Amino acid sequence: MSSNQATPASRTVGKKGRAGELRKRLFETRALSRTLAAPLSDEDQVVQAMEDASPTKWHLGHTTWFFESFLLAELDTSYKLFDEDFAYCFNSYYEGKGERHPRPFRGLLTRPGADAVRAYRAHVDEALDRFLGENVDDATLDIVELGINHEQQHQELLLTDILSLFASQPLRPAYRKAALAAADKSYPAKYIAFEGGVAEAGHVGDGFSYDNEGPRHEVLLHPFALADRCVTKGDWLDFMADGGYETPALWLSDGWATVREQGWRAPLYWEEHDGEWRQMTLAGMRPIDPAAPVAHLSYFEADAFARWSGKRLPTEFEWEHASETTEDNGPTLGSEAYRPSPAGKPDGSLKQMFGDVWEWTQSHYSPYPGYEPPKGAVGEYNGKFMCAQFVLKGASCVTPDGHSRRTYRNFFYPHQRWQFTGLRLAENR
Amino acid sequence: MSSNQATPASRTVGKKGRAGELRKRLFETRALSRTLAAPLSDEDQVVQAMEDASPTKWHLGHTTWFFESFLLAELDTSYKLFDEDFAYCFNSYYEGKGERHPRPFRGLLTRPGADAVRAYRAHVDEALDRFLGENVDDATLDIVELGINHEQQHQELLLTDILSLFASQPLRPAYRKAALAAADKSYPAKYIAFEGGVAEAGHVGDGFSYDNEGPRHEVLLHPFALADRCVTKGDWLDFMADGGYETPALWLSDGWATVREQGWRAPLYWEEHDGEWRQMTLAGMRPIDPAAPVAHLSYFEADAFARWSGKRLPTEFEWEHASETTEDNGPTLGSEAYRPSPAGKPDGSLKQMFGDVWEWTQSHYSPYPGYEPPKGAVGEYNGKFMCAQFVLKGASCVTPDGHSRRTYRNFFYPHQRWQFTGLRLAENR
Amino acid sequence: MSSNQATPASRTVGKKGRAGELRKRLFETRALSRTLAAPLSDEDQVVQAMEDASPTKWHLGHTTWFFESFLLAELDTSYKLFDEDFAYCFNSYYEGKGERHPRPFRGLLTRPGADAVRAYRAHVDEALDRFLGENVDDATLDIVELGINHEQQHQELLLTDILSLFASQPLRPAYRKAALAAADKSYPAKYIAFEGGVAEAGHVGDGFSYDNEGPRHEVLLHPFALADRCVTKGDWLDFMADGGYETPALWLSDGWATVREQGWRAPLYWEEHDGEWRQMTLAGMRPIDPAAPVAHLSYFEADAFARWSGKRLPTEFEWEHASETTEDNGPTLGSEAYRPSPAGKPDGSLKQMFGDVWEWTQSHYSPYPGYEPPKGAVGEYNGKFMCAQFVLKGASCVTPDGHSRRTYRNFFYPHQRWQFTGLRLAENR
Amino acid sequence: MSSNQATPASRTVGKKGRAGELRKRLFETRALSRTLAAPLSDEDQVVQAMEDASPTKWHLGHTTWFFESFLLAELDTSYKLFDEDFAYCFNSYYEGKGERHPRPFRGLLTRPGADAVRAYRAHVDEALDRFLGENVDDATLDIVELGINHEQQHQELLLTDILSLFASQPLRPAYRKAALAAADKSYPAKYIAFEGGVAEAGHVGDGFSYDNEGPRHEVLLHPFALADRCVTKGDWLDFMADGGYETPALWLSDGWATVREQGWRAPLYWEEHDGEWRQMTLAGMRPIDPAAPVAHLSYFEADAFARWSGKRLPTEFEWEHASETTEDNGPTLGSEAYRPSPAGKPDGSLKQMFGDVWEWTQSHYSPYPGYEPPKGAVGEYNGKFMCAQFVLKGASCVTPDGHSRRTYRNFFYPHQRWQFTGLRLAENR
Repeated sequence: MSSNQATPASRTVGKKGRAGELRKRLFETRALSRTLAAPLSDEDQVVQAMEDASPTKWHLGHTTWFFESFLLAELDTSYKLFDEDFAYCFNSYYEGKGERHPRPFRGLLTRPGADAVRAYRAHVDEALDRFLGENVDDATLDIVELGINHEQQHQELLLTDILSLFASQPLRPAYRKAALAAADKSYPAKYIAFEGGVAEAGHVGDGFSYDNEGPRHEVLLHPFALADRCVTKGDWLDFMADGGYETPALWLSDGWATVREQGWRAPLYWEEHDGEWRQMTLAGMRPIDPAAPVAHLSYFEADAFARWSGKRLPTEFEWEHASETTEDNGPTLGSEAYRPSPAGKPDGSLKQMFGDVWEWTQSHYSPYPGYEPPKGAVGEYNGKFMCAQFVLKGASCVTPDGHSRRTYRNFFYPHQRWQFTGLRLAENR
Repeated sequence: MSSNQATPASRTVGKKGRAGELRKRLFETRALSRTLAAPLSDEDQVVQAMEDASPTKWHLGHTTWFFESFLLAELDTSYKLFDEDFAYCFNSYYEGKGERHPRPFRGLLTRPGADAVRAYRAHVDEALDRFLGENVDDATLDIVELGINHEQQHQELLLTDILSLFASQPLRPAYRKAALAAADKSYPAKYIAFEGGVAEAGHVGDGFSYDNEGPRHEVLLHPFALADRCVTKGDWLDFMADGGYETPALWLSDGWATVREQGWRAPLYWEEHDGEWRQMTLAGMRPIDPAAPVAHLSYFEADAFARWSGKRLPTEFEWEHASETTEDNGPTLGSEAYRPSPAGKPDGSLKQMFGDVWEWTQSHYSPYPGYEPPKGAVGEYNGKFMCAQFVLKGASCVTPDGHSRRTYRNFFYPHQRWQFTGLRLAENR
Repeated sequence: MSSNQATPASRTVGKKGRAGELRKRLFETRALSRTLAAPLSDEDQVVQAMEDASPTKWHLGHTTWFFESFLLAELDTSYKLFDEDFAYCFNSYYEGKGERHPRPFRGLLTRPGADAVRAYRAHVDEALDRFLGENVDDATLDIVELGINHEQQHQELLLTDILSLFASQPLRPAYRKAALAAADKSYPAKYIAFEGGVAEAGHVGDGFSYDNEGPRHEVLLHPFALADRCVTKGDWLDFMADGGYETPALWLSDGWATVREQGWRAPLYWEEHDGEWRQMTLAGMRPIDPAAPVAHLSYFEADAFARWSGKRLPTEFEWEHASETTEDNGPTLGSEAYRPSPAGKPDGSLKQMFGDVWEWTQSHYSPYPGYEPPKGAVGEYNGKFMCAQFVLKGASCVTPDGHSRRTYRNFFYPHQRWQFTGLRLAENR
Repeated sequence: MSSNQATPASRTVGKKGRAGELRKRLFETRALSRTLAAPLSDEDQVVQAMEDASPTKWHLGHTTWFFESFLLAELDTSYKLFDEDFAYCFNSYYEGKGERHPRPFRGLLTRPGADAVRAYRAHVDEALDRFLGENVDDATLDIVELGINHEQQHQELLLTDILSLFASQPLRPAYRKAALAAADKSYPAKYIAFEGGVAEAGHVGDGFSYDNEGPRHEVLLHPFALADRCVTKGDWLDFMADGGYETPALWLSDGWATVREQGWRAPLYWEEHDGEWRQMTLAGMRPIDPAAPVAHLSYFEADAFARWSGKRLPTEFEWEHASETTEDNGPTLGSEAYRPSPAGKPDGSLKQMFGDVWEWTQSHYSPYPGYEPPKGAVGEYNGKFMCAQFVLKGASCVTPDGHSRRTYRNFFYPHQRWQFTGLRLAENR
């Protein structure tokens, strides 16, 4: 997900209007990163629990380096780099921007310290404030908008990475305490039918989008139906009780190999104590809430569950097409729930589409017809990740508000499960 | 490729006619396996050079076990197993058929010996001959036809696996000597254009096909053009000379990581001696033939070459659609070339479509809409491999004659390259 | 080295005198740990750069847990554990003390935080102060003395582990700035001869020692000579210039395999920039000082150098016997040099014997005749490490003052080199 | 064990006499290798079951290459190499003899085939016969004697490597069928006491020995006693029943880590079926014979058993000294038992000292004082393996007759257990 880059967009308001709006959003976004890091000690911010995750401090530095490197250093002739070594420390994977500190060792960077990174953020924010007071051309604003979206992605990662860190510690600390939720089981999912035919998919228009969401193009859909809610933890307990993790016929070949190698018996962060399952969450260890969407699933698990159910996962185009029937924007980061929430009562509409959990689709992540990556290092790359990953749609309970849209294509490898990833079932009609 | 299973088919001729034809093909196929093994010593037949490959003896035993297990043991009540332990030794991956010897250790099986496996083949062939003399029902014939196709797949693997073994040996032995080919460079590829629109894809009708080739369904194509020939070794030398293996911007992210980890500098089996490239082939070490299609490429390399060329790989549906304009069936195993051959002169048609090299497409290997795997162990599985692999179309110089068709979907992981895998370029129109 | 445990000892002074002396040393030792951690940020204290090393915070917690667990929890009935979870976090390897956090993941422990560990230290220090005001029996004092020595070992590790962390960071920070040393080459080593015969080795008497230093026993020595100084960095540059790292005949078989796998071309922490070697030290990146002892060598390197020199490494008994001719206590931690120092001028005596660098011997680390480990968890174990390691004698520039003695047996695996480990040559006479 | 090289020796008989005797032994030894390979198919002879083991064909080729390379190619000016590529294929580890095929891939060498290797043996044997008819100088005879001893070592390895191969196969084939042995438990071991004092150890005199057996030197022994028989399988079942494999306090730290990583629950080749233990042997799967010495133990297991018994392992010098009281030469290869045999009845002497199983000592494998490896490639090396291994004394049931002596030092890493390795207990007196 950290790889999404932008197609310049959202130019519907006038130039002045756009500039003002983006400046406001920029500094709100920058402030939100600080807010998210606030409950964490400097120690919490430096450690990396696994290769896929990054330390909080690195996220704070990297998002700042993005503005410094792609905007200030390129467009602001009076700008002085805060520290020449920071590019090496905080470049993620932009080959076009030179050598960089290897990802698996991001957790070794005790220097620069958290204080220095906070000073770096302040320095860049000041420079941005000054520069944007004088420059409102589209090239500048396009980078600003891309940087905002980029930082939002890292805000989600910051939280999922902290969860992976806290889950690895014997004390199982809470990022943020929360009241216990009610725990009834959810209602049986209802399927909402859609006709097939030629539909359009992919981004179009003035709003912001990443390059991988286009070009908009026609797709053929066959008649299908989509469950009105996500699969819940209660559903998942049924799958487990029925031997889901012990039945090879339910699994993809690679999935079954992973189950055996990793010893998977439940979703990530679930732990069994004295015969009872509990779950590590951003609020610490908690009972399982059977009515809430199950999260922290790999594609392999989502696919096996669908097979066990006699259903299937939707394609990314089915999901996108169906999403046009709902305005539901589900609980995202602004709700401060920090966990998926029950769907409530059935009402004939698709629920939980843009919040709670990212939903695995059966679509491999591939380029749309006519796709071309943008030029230059900033265009590195959505394209270079288009291999052996799967598309997820929607948004999660820790996706920043305003960051989701129907055409958004999130993507992960089929074995990865440290994000808030779940599923919604589909069937043929 | 070893995972393809069948949809019962080819019932156009009358029952008697079909039975006779299939018996003939069955024993020709069985004989061909013996012929292919003939140049090999018993020692050659027992060793496994790498995990992806299997020993010749194992291929000979496994294809025999397939007939014994799915046909004789299930339908012939008078049949006695040749040896009860052989099911454990020669089951490949059929979870529904019980425990089995692990794939990475197939090369440890010095017992049963090659003699015993030859006796096993004779025993099963006799039983098949007798049983098929009396049974011509469709259920039986469907298994026969599936078994023929299954054995053909293993014939191709037998040869590519022997090449991997011989290439790993210091003496670089030849499977079969051959004369040197002429070595001029090929003509520049010409692009043949196709209109877009709704087309049909996937298998239909009475002929044999695997389950993963259906159901036939409509697909949307955008206007495109396809090169009339495969990319050649001469083209590949240009790519290498231009720094293809040293330029990260040309590569998928996973591909670049693989290039660096594996130290790739050329296709598999190419070796540099004193500044000159040579290639290990089934005829031993040979000079590079610049006019012949390049083979033994990973998807990563095919994709990087396409990007370097300013072109792209075709989708599987573009390839299938375009293939309908040609009857060319290219040199396959019956040609006894054992290597890809130059395309000859341009003639306005697509050349080398069904021979020489399997052609990587940009299509991830996914189920067609409405796909369901067949019931029972014999239906294990095309479905279970539908994850993170890519589709290849056509056939290679070691594909048995009659084994290819337009709808055939071969598939491998993007890093694999011990098959005769190459590419043909496409472009948008 | 973290595994050394004690034989109760040092009871020459009267009971009161011993109690007073040990209390003084105890709190001085406890204070020194705080002093050593003072230049480090909380972030520096939490991260683990490699499996062999531990975070500073862990050292601070573990040495405190040692006093809590082996003294207060066992002998002080009024003592309340600071936190029940800390035993799990800070046990190193004592199987007899229950489950513990795995060593490779010590660097994940952001909680308990550095503040909590400081509070833990204060809590335990207070309890020790109170308890020792009332209890001066030998059993108590023996644990105190053992705990002091144990904490001193961890003080040395704290510094070598911080060096490994700082060396892994792109900014190469300094633990403590220092002036540049003069850089002439040292004088040629002179060999001091010793007669052979039956000698005694191993600890005896009232002073403190670890269990692995006894029982004192007779050993047979053959006539030998020992170099009067350690091998220097200048000597090492000669070895490198002569192809030392490229000549297989100089190396043990396992050593040569390690050189090739790890790509060793110089001692640990040496880096080549533009053809010039520099070294990462506790004072940051520094030029090579040719007159100073070379450090951060594996046994493999020390052994290869000796072979290249036409000499050999001494045995542990030769070293111990020879050491009786000198009172030299070399620069240790109290000198605040934090690096090995030149030997000065030859004076006919063995120099640098108890400071600068630990000296590899050719002796595998084995039990002395009649050795028995002490009973109980506190006696875990020197014995359990007596396999495939080698003995080092002397002390290093970061060994706490008063922690070395002639009979001390330090030990590491032959590939390890993150300690201040060097060598002194021997020869037969 | 494959690394032992020789000190020229056995010159007591006159030159003619020595020459005649060595020629006889040479061709007997060469014939024995053929005999040992006779029960094996060509397939059995090509495969390598694990990195530590080598294929039979490789042993046959390597021992032949040894004579070709160190004798014929160096001393016989008329000799023509059988095949120039064979040196690459069959060099084991002699860096001084040029590049070689890597050990882990010896099992890939289907070419040269077994027939070619048999022809190679015949070619070299003929050349040796002719050359030795004319040359009887000591330099020549020293190489012959070394080559004989070298080939004997490989004869033992050939059998233990075949056992490792057959044990890895589902059919568990027998190398050679054998009658069932009686299965009573052995008598309780009796301890035979020895006084301490200065003793001599190491080889002296005219007989053949390897370089690592000298120089003969004085050693100090403390009073000790040695069990009169080896530890039996019955003893081992008691250890297992008492939780030996589940009790960390019994194990060396590295040993316990190995037990857990490898899941060890019994000696190598023991398998539990329905609650009963059986053992894979050169005669196939067999019941456990409780009276026979336990074999296929690592040092870790031998050491843990000794600790559990309240005893210890002997040192290599204790064993050598004690061995002077017995002429017992125990069952070795000539007995054709191919397995350890019960000790019979106690008779006041040390039994099973030179047969049945190699006996682990507590002595790390280190050079004797004054040890120098011989010059040149033939002197590669005993020295280069003197690191982190342990000495074993005696001989095993598959050691060729006449290959053992009191001063022989076999050596393996502490985790290795595919040889016939067992133990005899010692205690202090």
